[in-house]
Amino acid sequence: MAPLAKGPIYFGPFLVTSQVFYLTPLSFALVNLKPIIPGHVLVSPRRCVPRVSDLTPDETTDLFLTVRKVGRIIERVYGATSLNIAIQDGVDAGQSVPHVHTHIIPRKKADLDHKGGTDAIYEMLDGEEGDIWKIQKEFKQLQESLALGTTGEKKRRTNFPAVDNESRTPRTAEDMEQEAVMLAAEMEMERDD
Amino acid sequence: MAPLAKGPIYFGPFLVTSQVFYLTPLSFALVNLKPIIPGHVLVSPRRCVPRVSDLTPDETTDLFLTVRKVGRIIERVYGATSLNIAIQDGVDAGQSVPHVHTHIIPRKKADLDHKGGTDAIYEMLDGEEGDIWKIQKEFKQLQESLALGTTGEKKRRTNFPAVDNESRTPRTAEDMEQEAVMLAAEMEMERDD
Repeated sequence: MAPLAKGPIYFGPFLVTSQVFYLTPLSFALVNLKPIIPGHVLVSPRRCVPRVSDLTPDETTDLFLTVRKVGRIIERVYGATSLNIAIQDGVDAGQSVPHVHTHIIPRKKADLDHKGGTDAIYEMLDGEEGDIWKIQKEFKQLQESLALGTTGEKKRRTNFPAVDNESRTPRTAEDMEQEAVMLAAEMEMERDD
Repeated sequence: MAPLAKGPIYFGPFLVTSQVFYLTPLSFALVNLKPIIPGHVLVSPRRCVPRVSDLTPDETTDLFLTVRKVGRIIERVYGATSLNIAIQDGVDAGQSVPHVHTHIIPRKKADLDHKGGTDAIYEMLDGEEGDIWKIQKEFKQLQESLALGTTGEKKRRTNFPAVDNESRTPRTAEDMEQEAVMLAAEMEMERDD
């Protein structure tokens, strides 16, 4: 059950309705299938365009007011003290899904010291573990094969994004929806200023 | 001679009037003392606040409409095909100067292959060469010692940010102003839509 069932929401070619936790007339925010840090979320315009330059002034305004609002919530809910806010605006800047998306990543002091320091976040963002296209595609294939009843437990495991050697676990649709519902409730309580 | 002489502009504690190439009532854009890639510029709110969350809705809107406009110009002028747009929002996300600033970095295909690939930009941004606080501070000290007439050529070299082993050269105030004047002219020609 989607937390904000207001018709299907697409992120690039991917149906992400159940990942969405905040909607405005022009923007939406979604939880990630595999957040590179817990609380790593995305904010996108409703209209699927690849570049920031393609946005209208109204879309630009709405998108970044949404980023500010979502950032406040994410920082509080995940007990963070800072945020990385990043847009890979175009394929040569590392963009994988051709639909404008702003990464919001909650940060704490020394949270990535075991990975090499503060800036390790970007290697994670641009590397295999941040490849949203690949992750969403694998999830879509899994959902399709489950719907068709062609996937046994073994096949399912193979299709699912591999867990790396850190403590990250692949998420089920239910996990994501649970997080989305929780964040949707937090967003509703947030002041608009 | 500043390209946009409308009173002093401060970026954190630093006087950056001669680096500014675009001004709105609520935002300004400045060239970098040591861009990590040519065309790497910053966009900040006029009011000095550390966090995106501290911005008013009007400041947020103005800032990101400015980011969009400046991004278009930077991409065209520097012959790029993509942009990295990034905010280190808080000290635990790598922020060095406690004044909101959006990095805009023009990117081209395979431009950082010699540095390790697309994502190398972030290591550069968060490492020594992207430490804007340190770079601006060294520049300020140099300007002050020059004004006091206490700096010989040898001292000057010591004070100036060290050139790393790449092809980057430290910039003079004149270099920066020249770039700022050029970009200011380009900004004036840009449509507002």
